[in-house]
Amino acid sequence: MRITNLIDKKKSNIELTSEEIKWLVDSYTNGLIPDYQMSAFLMAVNFNGLSDDETYNLTMAMRDSGDILDLSAIDGIKVDKHSSGGVGDKVTLILLGIIGALDVPFAKMSGRGLGHTGGTIDKLESIPGFSSELSEEEFIDNVNSVNVAIASQTADLAPADKKLYALRDVTCTVDETSLIASSIMSKKLASGCDAIVLDVTLGSGAFMHDIDEARRLATKMVNIGKKCGKKTIAVITNMDEPLGTCVGNAIEVAEAVRSLKGYGPGDLMEVVYTLGANMLIAAGKVDNEGKARILMDTAISNGSAYNKFLEMVNKQGGDISYVKNYDSLINASIIREVKAEESGFVHSIDAHLIGETVRMLGGGRSSLEDDIDVSVGMVVNKKVADSVKTGQIIAFVYGNDEEKVDEAYKNILKAYTIKDERIDKPKMILDIIR
Amino acid sequence: MRITNLIDKKKSNIELTSEEIKWLVDSYTNGLIPDYQMSAFLMAVNFNGLSDDETYNLTMAMRDSGDILDLSAIDGIKVDKHSSGGVGDKVTLILLGIIGALDVPFAKMSGRGLGHTGGTIDKLESIPGFSSELSEEEFIDNVNSVNVAIASQTADLAPADKKLYALRDVTCTVDETSLIASSIMSKKLASGCDAIVLDVTLGSGAFMHDIDEARRLATKMVNIGKKCGKKTIAVITNMDEPLGTCVGNAIEVAEAVRSLKGYGPGDLMEVVYTLGANMLIAAGKVDNEGKARILMDTAISNGSAYNKFLEMVNKQGGDISYVKNYDSLINASIIREVKAEESGFVHSIDAHLIGETVRMLGGGRSSLEDDIDVSVGMVVNKKVADSVKTGQIIAFVYGNDEEKVDEAYKNILKAYTIKDERIDKPKMILDIIR
Repeated sequence: MRITNLIDKKKSNIELTSEEIKWLVDSYTNGLIPDYQMSAFLMAVNFNGLSDDETYNLTMAMRDSGDILDLSAIDGIKVDKHSSGGVGDKVTLILLGIIGALDVPFAKMSGRGLGHTGGTIDKLESIPGFSSELSEEEFIDNVNSVNVAIASQTADLAPADKKLYALRDVTCTVDETSLIASSIMSKKLASGCDAIVLDVTLGSGAFMHDIDEARRLATKMVNIGKKCGKKTIAVITNMDEPLGTCVGNAIEVAEAVRSLKGYGPGDLMEVVYTLGANMLIAAGKVDNEGKARILMDTAISNGSAYNKFLEMVNKQGGDISYVKNYDSLINASIIREVKAEESGFVHSIDAHLIGETVRMLGGGRSSLEDDIDVSVGMVVNKKVADSVKTGQIIAFVYGNDEEKVDEAYKNILKAYTIKDERIDKPKMILDIIR
Repeated sequence: MRITNLIDKKKSNIELTSEEIKWLVDSYTNGLIPDYQMSAFLMAVNFNGLSDDETYNLTMAMRDSGDILDLSAIDGIKVDKHSSGGVGDKVTLILLGIIGALDVPFAKMSGRGLGHTGGTIDKLESIPGFSSELSEEEFIDNVNSVNVAIASQTADLAPADKKLYALRDVTCTVDETSLIASSIMSKKLASGCDAIVLDVTLGSGAFMHDIDEARRLATKMVNIGKKCGKKTIAVITNMDEPLGTCVGNAIEVAEAVRSLKGYGPGDLMEVVYTLGANMLIAAGKVDNEGKARILMDTAISNGSAYNKFLEMVNKQGGDISYVKNYDSLINASIIREVKAEESGFVHSIDAHLIGETVRMLGGGRSSLEDDIDVSVGMVVNKKVADSVKTGQIIAFVYGNDEEKVDEAYKNILKAYTIKDERIDKPKMILDIIR
């Protein structure tokens, strides 16, 4: 096989065979195909896309390029969850408590934050002592003993995807739907779960901005999962304003704990309940969303979800006194009030700008080597559709550097669009693809 | 400026500015942009093309990336000619004699053959002693003294094009029209001539197979030339069967000499006369093709074209006794007759297969480092539209290796399509773009 033939085929929109894709991925991962030929291939894919079969074959080749976790030592239907990322997205933190409390094994592999979106691992590590560096054995043991575990990476999963993603990142080929679908699914399938629930985020705080594109991505991922015999459900959620009220690391843990105690904001809890319900359905725990909601409500109201979260934090070395007294997590040296300069109704909050602002404050990374400051962040005090009067506090900035806080203040004012007309609260669940 | 922004722009079909293209070419040539990003850019160009301004700016940036020949020491309007390549294309050899004899300075920069097409330099070097390795000074002196000179490369012309072409070659991005146009024109414009005549070949022996594509390429090149203030004319010629009767190196020189003596085959001479006429028009020697044809006919019939060719060969160190006694050039050890296996009319001769066959015999290169055997080649005895009877000789193979000659024999039979119906001789000049 010759790489130029494969580039030519993709350029001419001719479907590649399973063998060709396998050879392409293996040869690239082994360094036999140089970056400059692979990037030409990827750009051709950007224009001509991949067929369903090609997308599936690419996913399989990347999944098989490294280790595949064996979770068979865990009883029950292991469910995993993936989010395409967003601003203020602490859904996983809350679901760890809820799903774990409902006797469904939740073995979560997670990444660190990059760009304007935060990462679940970073957030949890703002709890002193908490570690997500679990060995494969520890990961399995933890799920078996407390039903829930979260690990940053226990094995060399889908190294082909890692290498390809790095190349896509510098050659403007990250946003092609089939490439996104196969990248996400190769990692999820390598992590050994039995069922997958995907949160496809849409809006200014997400990577997707078009509902049709989001549906295409969701459908592609669900089809790949099904073809591998895994129950797979994708929920398209609204990420046009920050989710909930807190954005940052420690501050989002505090909001997650508050939510587990029953005080979660409406938009956040709507997403939590919908994803959670679909996880319970995918795991075979219930057969409809109504029953799932009752179970989840109960887990929160009787304290079992909160207790499960404490149990998990404790198991992974975290100091639970910080969780119990969650205000102690928030220790930025500067807290600045941001006041409205006009009256009306909040029509939009640019979530991307909010995410970038928190990154600028020190709460996020520009490259994976950057250190982050878990104490910084912000509170969105006024959400979309809320009424606001000049001088009212619309947000709080938490920072450790006066200049950066000044800049954040200006950015937040810029992120808010306030108009005279009343508008409705945005719909959070935009579609569900099964 | 950032390369990812430029890739993104081209991917989104947004026009790049002159400054952006200049920066792109300079940064790539200087090694500041890695191959893998440039190849992604090139593949995006393959899909979205380049606007006329972008094509012009790319050409200028590549022209300016190295030396620009200064031919001002040569009096008169210096004309140059370029062919997109073909099989049996010895047009330049003949025009060197004709144009030189008509007092128009013909300063020809030329390349070596690659792939299934031969190179003029290789052909001339089959004359013992002939050298095309002229310094810039020798090149100019030769044109001043004998009116005509051919050099393989006297200076570092358009190095950016060289680097880009090598990358395009291995990333399947060679066939985009704007990239072809800017590659050809950057070299021609760096070679310092005043007027350019372009032979855009079309058909099985050429790189272009579609008349509309050929017209687009021709128009793009003519527009670039004009924008630079150079009289530029493109002639689209038929390259669907081998041009003339001989394919190889020494054997093509023999046919060129025969043609200069007035015995050139019709299809070849039609191309020679049309390109020659347009060179004379471009150089301001005559104002219409009719007058040009009379001048050229006279130059051949009175022997001045032939004598000019001898003069040039002599000036560049070639042994003219081989030219005078041109059959002595043909010294392959095996000459094999290829006989028709059916009767009828020749409907087509696959020129690409013929070119590949001569390369296989040793007459061409697979990579620029390969040595070639100038003695091998073939004679096309029956051309398209000729009638043929079973057992008649349709071609002769000239080779030095029995096995290869056997393979060539089979290939030639395969290259010929013979059918019962009579057909007309193909039209040689398909269009002229000024």
